[in-house]
Amino acid sequence: MTAWEKALEAIREAGDVVLFLHRRPDGDSVGSNLAMALALLRMGKAVKIVSQDPVPPYLQGLPGADLIRAPQGEPETFSLALALDCADKERTGMALPWLEGAKRVVNVDHHSSNTLFGHINVVDPAASATGELVYRLLTDLEVPLDGAMAKNLYVAILTDTGSFSFSNTTPWAHRIAAHLLEMGVRPAEVAEEVFGSRSEAGLRLWGRAIGRLQREGEGRLVWSYLSQEDFQELGVDAAEGEGIAQELRRLEGVEGAFFFREEAPGLWRVSLRSRGLLNVAELASLFGGGGHPRAAGLTWQGTLEEGSRKLLAEALRLLAEVKS
Amino acid sequence: MTAWEKALEAIREAGDVVLFLHRRPDGDSVGSNLAMALALLRMGKAVKIVSQDPVPPYLQGLPGADLIRAPQGEPETFSLALALDCADKERTGMALPWLEGAKRVVNVDHHSSNTLFGHINVVDPAASATGELVYRLLTDLEVPLDGAMAKNLYVAILTDTGSFSFSNTTPWAHRIAAHLLEMGVRPAEVAEEVFGSRSEAGLRLWGRAIGRLQREGEGRLVWSYLSQEDFQELGVDAAEGEGIAQELRRLEGVEGAFFFREEAPGLWRVSLRSRGLLNVAELASLFGGGGHPRAAGLTWQGTLEEGSRKLLAEALRLLAEVKS
Repeated sequence: MTAWEKALEAIREAGDVVLFLHRRPDGDSVGSNLAMALALLRMGKAVKIVSQDPVPPYLQGLPGADLIRAPQGEPETFSLALALDCADKERTGMALPWLEGAKRVVNVDHHSSNTLFGHINVVDPAASATGELVYRLLTDLEVPLDGAMAKNLYVAILTDTGSFSFSNTTPWAHRIAAHLLEMGVRPAEVAEEVFGSRSEAGLRLWGRAIGRLQREGEGRLVWSYLSQEDFQELGVDAAEGEGIAQELRRLEGVEGAFFFREEAPGLWRVSLRSRGLLNVAELASLFGGGGHPRAAGLTWQGTLEEGSRKLLAEALRLLAEVKS
Repeated sequence: MTAWEKALEAIREAGDVVLFLHRRPDGDSVGSNLAMALALLRMGKAVKIVSQDPVPPYLQGLPGADLIRAPQGEPETFSLALALDCADKERTGMALPWLEGAKRVVNVDHHSSNTLFGHINVVDPAASATGELVYRLLTDLEVPLDGAMAKNLYVAILTDTGSFSFSNTTPWAHRIAAHLLEMGVRPAEVAEEVFGSRSEAGLRLWGRAIGRLQREGEGRLVWSYLSQEDFQELGVDAAEGEGIAQELRRLEGVEGAFFFREEAPGLWRVSLRSRGLLNVAELASLFGGGGHPRAAGLTWQGTLEEGSRKLLAEALRLLAEVKS
């Protein structure tokens, strides 16, 4: 019997099942778990979903979201723990005892880094999303899909493929999406709900940041800023400035994009983004920050003039090293 | 014989075919025409694509783009003019004599406002993109798809569905995309190529447009503009302003977004976008324009003040009718 068949059997046999959102749950985690939970309920089983962290606002409208509970009190014992989209068991966070207390653990995931922590492991890195695997499980379990399950699966695939645009997008992701649209999913409404709306204040901040955009190093570096004054004038929190560095990186010819936002007077939070040539994790570390090679951050205490001048100088130096 | 069958027959019989990009060509226009042109060449026919306007930079990398010519000199006579994605024959711009001089005109489109100007008209407003119709035509013509055709069809569908997120996205769009990925299309590379980079000038235009953003009707309408002066100062073509209305529509609470761009002194091209409640095709038609219920356009000759005032007044009137 394959792991897939064993997983199907374990699900069929279990009378009570516990499911888990991973820490800082995303669309694939919430969508996959809700679709599975609704299907298990339909099959007549007792189901709980436990989650250390709350569901983010943009996913709270998903059907069945009210089934999700914090892992409070004594862990209950279930005949089956079904972990979806968790690369390792620690991803369940404070819900881990609920997983470890179960008689059987089935681990269904698409991360290649999965540690195979289950008694049964169905790990398919070729799948675009765990939602794709859940769709196939439900098909084989012969659960009739309803609109609620369809919407959850659609959100799982939509978010993990960046609206079908990331390199992990498979023909299967599209075929499943086709079926889910036939089940009544409305793509524009879901996209609006999930990727949604921009606030006017956020847009005006962006307009100001563009107006101040500066380029250096023959255009290979771009930077801009928003000050405390900007946030106060537009009546928004400095957190609204998130994502601007990411947008600046999209400029033609840019290797590195830096965005300064003044979180408190003289205290600048700097986001660094790269297209790959410039290692911004290394750059950030020179200023006591850190992150990934393409996305990093640092905090600068002092004047914008000095901070930007030093950061750009180091960035140009690192870029020159790459080229030589 | 259905119009579909007649169209297939006309294509099969023609030895020489002329195709047309519509004015200000977009991804569906360029992708559909290139896919069809490559297929016709494969079928052994003589093919020309004529286009009044140049192919925008983000689409110039599409395979076969070198087949596109400006309609210069005496119009040549073709046995078949195949108009793809043109709602009316004037959309061919200065290439119109090439269409009118052909012995037969086949009109394939998905705009509900299509004027049925062909001898044979295949108009399917349920199709997400003309690229979807071209895919089906090529299937029925039994042309073996290659990677070049696949990429063109993918771009046609990708751009007209906003990466599979607009309300016009059909199960068919996804099924076709699944097949095109199997033919070798790389979704992340195409997304980067097509949506990827922003020009600095384009970004600065956007910054100015945001700075002038105005809201009416308790915020349900938003509008902005860019003048000839803006385009001249930033040294870019007015075509760079495309897409701004689409972005404005994403503002929280907005039902309708209008964007005016001055293409020549006193000549304003207006893009209208709606979230669904406001029928912008109807609105545009009041000013001699047209399009889809959620995406339409019109041309205004006169002052910005008068144009915006009249357009907003009619939009508020239509919105009030919807609510009552």
